Amino acid sequence: MGTMTTATTDTARRYSREHADKFKKELFEMLRIPSLSGDPAHKGDVKRMADWLATHMRELKLEKVAVMPTPGHPVVYGEWTGAGPDKPTVLVYGHYDVVPAAKEDGWDSPPFEPVVKDGNIYARGATDDKGQLFIHVKALESYLKTAGSAPVNVKFVLEGEEEVSSPNLAPFIKEHLDLLKADVCIVSDSAMSHIDQPAVMHSLRGMTYIEIEVQGPKNDLHSGLWGGAAHNPALALVEILGKLYKPDNTVAVPGFYDDVKPLTDEERKMIAKTDLTEEAYKKATGVPGVWGDKKFTIRERLCARPTLEINGMWSGWTGPGPKTIVPTKAGAKVSCRLVGNQDPHKIFQLLDSYIASIAPPTVKVNVKLINVGKPALFPFDSPEMQAAARAYEKGWGKKPLFTRGGGSIPIVGDIADIMGIPVVMMGYGLDDDGLHSPNEKYSLEMFQRGIETAIVYLDELAQLRR
Amino acid sequence: MGTMTTATTDTARRYSREHADKFKKELFEMLRIPSLSGDPAHKGDVKRMADWLATHMRELKLEKVAVMPTPGHPVVYGEWTGAGPDKPTVLVYGHYDVVPAAKEDGWDSPPFEPVVKDGNIYARGATDDKGQLFIHVKALESYLKTAGSAPVNVKFVLEGEEEVSSPNLAPFIKEHLDLLKADVCIVSDSAMSHIDQPAVMHSLRGMTYIEIEVQGPKNDLHSGLWGGAAHNPALALVEILGKLYKPDNTVAVPGFYDDVKPLTDEERKMIAKTDLTEEAYKKATGVPGVWGDKKFTIRERLCARPTLEINGMWSGWTGPGPKTIVPTKAGAKVSCRLVGNQDPHKIFQLLDSYIASIAPPTVKVNVKLINVGKPALFPFDSPEMQAAARAYEKGWGKKPLFTRGGGSIPIVGDIADIMGIPVVMMGYGLDDDGLHSPNEKYSLEMFQRGIETAIVYLDELAQLRR
Repeated sequence: MGTMTTATTDTARRYSREHADKFKKELFEMLRIPSLSGDPAHKGDVKRMADWLATHMRELKLEKVAVMPTPGHPVVYGEWTGAGPDKPTVLVYGHYDVVPAAKEDGWDSPPFEPVVKDGNIYARGATDDKGQLFIHVKALESYLKTAGSAPVNVKFVLEGEEEVSSPNLAPFIKEHLDLLKADVCIVSDSAMSHIDQPAVMHSLRGMTYIEIEVQGPKNDLHSGLWGGAAHNPALALVEILGKLYKPDNTVAVPGFYDDVKPLTDEERKMIAKTDLTEEAYKKATGVPGVWGDKKFTIRERLCARPTLEINGMWSGWTGPGPKTIVPTKAGAKVSCRLVGNQDPHKIFQLLDSYIASIAPPTVKVNVKLINVGKPALFPFDSPEMQAAARAYEKGWGKKPLFTRGGGSIPIVGDIADIMGIPVVMMGYGLDDDGLHSPNEKYSLEMFQRGIETAIVYLDELAQLRR
Repeated sequence: MGTMTTATTDTARRYSREHADKFKKELFEMLRIPSLSGDPAHKGDVKRMADWLATHMRELKLEKVAVMPTPGHPVVYGEWTGAGPDKPTVLVYGHYDVVPAAKEDGWDSPPFEPVVKDGNIYARGATDDKGQLFIHVKALESYLKTAGSAPVNVKFVLEGEEEVSSPNLAPFIKEHLDLLKADVCIVSDSAMSHIDQPAVMHSLRGMTYIEIEVQGPKNDLHSGLWGGAAHNPALALVEILGKLYKPDNTVAVPGFYDDVKPLTDEERKMIAKTDLTEEAYKKATGVPGVWGDKKFTIRERLCARPTLEINGMWSGWTGPGPKTIVPTKAGAKVSCRLVGNQDPHKIFQLLDSYIASIAPPTVKVNVKLINVGKPALFPFDSPEMQAAARAYEKGWGKKPLFTRGGGSIPIVGDIADIMGIPVVMMGYGLDDDGLHSPNEKYSLEMFQRGIETAIVYLDELAQLRR
């Protein structure tokens, strides 16, 4: 049977290569839809994106295809269960929503008009996550259009709220446990450092996202008539934000690091395999110098340590020309990436209490929780992980590394917890893809290798004992 | 002659009362023009405002009326010299430009559609400075339409760039010294605390306005993939801004206070006459507590001490929803109000060197000078000041206080220096008029008293020896 399977798999892989141009055109259709989940003005586009996926899955003859409502944006569901109950079932998770993008942020081409340059597709969502989720749709298509069947059963659950931290997906999974029932979940929403060194991710950072608002005078004040006796809310915010960090670049919030699971020597050795030099980090990001907690390597800071970042900050007059005011308000968006056993709700409590304790009495300070996500950590010796390693070896010709991801896919921890199944993160992005940045890109070569590896992985999973 | 003059003056005052409604309608026409000098998009409106004033002065049969070009917005000039060379000449300075205003900033009515409520006109520019400059136009009209002449010669120089710190007015004055030649200059662009306690201002604060920009990574970075080893530019800006102040709320920039002329006991006594209680300051501004340098009274902090304020601050994502980035840039607009002998260019050098000395090497920091204005201080025993005091006593029925202004009218120091004449600041605003804030207002009662006091002042000046 091994030989037969290999033949079927090879035919599917050939189909995927022969139809590369069609696949690219279809992906372009997706990338043209500005499905921004965080902006109410784009609600219609998010729906249009969901409808496009459902229509596409129906054309591929998937079953139970539906745009399923949630209190927010819908989940797109579709399945192929023709492999039968004796074969494993794979649940593919992906997200069809994107973060904001505008030409004036520094894009060389309009973010929702995909173009190919030097073998890369440039568009918002190209790597995060439209290109990556589409890999699995195309892998299944490659089997169905050649053998007429796939080696395992495949279910798709594609959400439209990942970029706003998936507020409705965990309840959705709980409500539809029977429909979604599977043996393993695949998530392709992460990246590797180099196209020639594949990687399987076994850890993700969690998140606590807050907004701090400082209210000073009831209105903007003329700084000449009233300035000198009012605590400028921008200065008060500066004082608060300045106290969130210590001079050694560690977070100053008491208790912040208490639940961080210390790295073992073995883990540090594995992480060292993908470490970055200062020069490489500076080149990739354009920063004049590397910063951070010097007790840890650069890669450890990026994926195995918690962080606190100011994501946005605002106060007063930011338009052209001078305006001489004491602003009425100042605010900041602040988020922490969490690791190990840090609990995002506990971290919020720590932040909230600490900020309350340092808030000056001359202004009003309000801290609001925006969202949370649990960190996730999977052992890399499970059969599903090892099957993934074999699939990469066949798709790429090289053994993958097991890596930790610095990003957060809150739903990964939830799927594992709620469904009780392993999650395999087969990230088909590259570290320099610029997700969430201007000129987000996706390598066409990676798209092709991803589809072929996904084809092989379905076959490898078929050979695992149910 | 004293009696004759008083009769003429009384007739002019009566005319002004009888035509109050016409004057208000004309002022409304001015307030409907959004002459924002700081915003290039409103260039046409600024020109329209200048043209309106020139047309109005021509209708009043003023001579040499012209909209005179400068490298920025034009100066409107007009004069009446019928009193003849034996009589003094008064130069009236005012500005017809305004700061930005938008309904959504918290205005109860659209800022460029004036309405009257409880005896106040609500509109951007009502008190700063359209209402106040118009007082002098209407005072002259009241003489010309009744006696057919005024007691002194009057020249108007009305600029359109006061709110962007008058970059072109000093060169304009130097170029047109003959045209503008006068014995005294009147500036009405300031305020008193209570309508029943008139005040003549004898001091103004100067200004140094800068912009600080911090550049971190070349693009916004995904905070999960890259966060932890890049110095967040918003955090770097917070660190810099935090070091501009000391814990006792004084400015930390070395040398900042070196040239501040200490207050004499007599000056402190004069300032104490208009001091505010903590309750009064809190009520007027809405702040939860009073802030500042505790070695000085509230009024001293507001008008006799230098300040440093963050007027605006920006970084990263400030729109709806979370966005998890390390922003590429952060920036702030910062301005200092200066007093005594502080030199605005020297203060810029001190700020620039200090910020360079504290800027971390992990980001790029750029400090840009936006504009400067000299502080001004006039003795209050000059004949022109004392004539003003008498005019107020007749217009108001009460002796005025001599006060220091916390604001900056950069051109006041320039006029005094370049023309070698005293400047009398007859401010007809109220401290709570909300200039530069939403719901800027102007009291109709103040408008009327101002016109009558201006009428009397022209008569008082006529009696001074040339």
